[in-house]
Amino acid sequence: MIEDFNERYSELLNYFNARLGEYLKDIETQPSVLGESMKYSILLGGKRIRPVIMYAVGQALGIERELITPYAIAMELIHTYSLIHDDLPEMDNDDFRRGKPSNHKVFGAGNAVLAGDGLLNTAYSLLFGECFKGSENISAAKFICDAAGIYGMIAGQSADLLHENDSEPDENVLNYIYENKTGKLIMASAIVPSVLASGKYYSELKEFGRRLGLLFQLTDDILDVCGDFSNLGKSIGKDKAEGKLTAVSLYGIDGSKLRVDIIGDDCYTILDGLDCDVSFLYGLVDFVKSRLR
Amino acid sequence: MIEDFNERYSELLNYFNARLGEYLKDIETQPSVLGESMKYSILLGGKRIRPVIMYAVGQALGIERELITPYAIAMELIHTYSLIHDDLPEMDNDDFRRGKPSNHKVFGAGNAVLAGDGLLNTAYSLLFGECFKGSENISAAKFICDAAGIYGMIAGQSADLLHENDSEPDENVLNYIYENKTGKLIMASAIVPSVLASGKYYSELKEFGRRLGLLFQLTDDILDVCGDFSNLGKSIGKDKAEGKLTAVSLYGIDGSKLRVDIIGDDCYTILDGLDCDVSFLYGLVDFVKSRLR
Repeated sequence: MIEDFNERYSELLNYFNARLGEYLKDIETQPSVLGESMKYSILLGGKRIRPVIMYAVGQALGIERELITPYAIAMELIHTYSLIHDDLPEMDNDDFRRGKPSNHKVFGAGNAVLAGDGLLNTAYSLLFGECFKGSENISAAKFICDAAGIYGMIAGQSADLLHENDSEPDENVLNYIYENKTGKLIMASAIVPSVLASGKYYSELKEFGRRLGLLFQLTDDILDVCGDFSNLGKSIGKDKAEGKLTAVSLYGIDGSKLRVDIIGDDCYTILDGLDCDVSFLYGLVDFVKSRLR
Repeated sequence: MIEDFNERYSELLNYFNARLGEYLKDIETQPSVLGESMKYSILLGGKRIRPVIMYAVGQALGIERELITPYAIAMELIHTYSLIHDDLPEMDNDDFRRGKPSNHKVFGAGNAVLAGDGLLNTAYSLLFGECFKGSENISAAKFICDAAGIYGMIAGQSADLLHENDSEPDENVLNYIYENKTGKLIMASAIVPSVLASGKYYSELKEFGRRLGLLFQLTDDILDVCGDFSNLGKSIGKDKAEGKLTAVSLYGIDGSKLRVDIIGDDCYTILDGLDCDVSFLYGLVDFVKSRLR
């Protein structure tokens, strides 16, 4: 079962990376540094969890991969822009990302700002192109845009910045940051295929996506304390050193792990209620949980 | 004639500012600093030249104002985001904008990055909403997005950053920066109403917009040398102090003024060929030129 999951994950990952590679090949900018800095960050690799979720939910709902691909690429462009801007000295000030120097360490902060702007704008240029196909495509594009925006991811980043040096951890603030900063794009990844499939299992997938995002963020926080640089590819212990509000600072490691189990069970329960092949989605929940092992 | 122009400009400006105010009123973010920093910069005022061009061309082509408004607002949101990111310490490092402290001087660089990201994303959220109206609306939205992107404004910003400290001014580089950094959004402002009017006078308006953008940038460069802070609302002589490539460094003041006259005449010639009421557009050309008086 787990072997089968890993195989399917690799297959989806390879499929996405091939499509992404084709897409990026056509991007040639003047000056070249603009395109190079954009490609540097997006080609650092990673799990591509958002595209994989999209393809996996799409598969369960019977949506062709080809229809998902532009949304998956746009999502990864947006995710990458957010990492570049998050890593900037005036934001999280992170020198490493996926084990490599972060964008501004390689290209300078000015170019990193523009690389992020360029990735965000390119994502929407791609999605406007999809809009000609029909109103479901417009809805899916707008959904991603709203998830990435000032009532979604950017709100989470803003709250994160505002509460960076809070002396007392606050559960409501933490939940708000998690739900928006990481959660909204992961939730959107689960919903976009539903929107493209005329809203099939929309509310169930919304709840599933919300919880999967939370699970992802919880395991991330625990790994910041218990992980190591070679596995994680970014600086370890940075949250605590910066006095950052995280699940671990609020619940402790054991309390956070308990929450991982509870939310994982919630995910299973939601999937139990869907009448389609969700075996890979169960696997995805286990995959996120297994990062802690 | 000039009095009539000023009256019509004020009327369009007031109309746009009222629509913009209504739109912004509904924006309330958590944390509030995100929305406040976005509104701070967009409410600094200014000539709103891009929205005014859109309404003016729309009027000439017989397009209702109400149809133009979402595109005019999106355009101003995008223009404002570009100013905020341009003013950042790692970019142009400008402390003033429209006579007030620039965004990062008030809210800090981290919040300024997010204010810019938020404005850009909000513009596209608005435009995706317009896409449901029909394929011309999608084309107009995509046109703005492409003009703002990595083959448009962002390319111009990237070139500007790259060539900031060139010892020798290069005409090709300067033209590329002008055409993209300032030019593309102004050109898009002239074209969007044409796209909404099934492409009426598309190529003429594209050429008109291109030249109007150039005219605008030329007068801006001359004003950086000859203007004063109270009129311009930003630091004077900054281009030269930073060794920046401008029309003045390349052609001198007289040479730049000569180019203003030539390009202004080109604008008139294009307008002469249009069979609709373009009196206000002639006035717009004079208005941009008159900044030098």
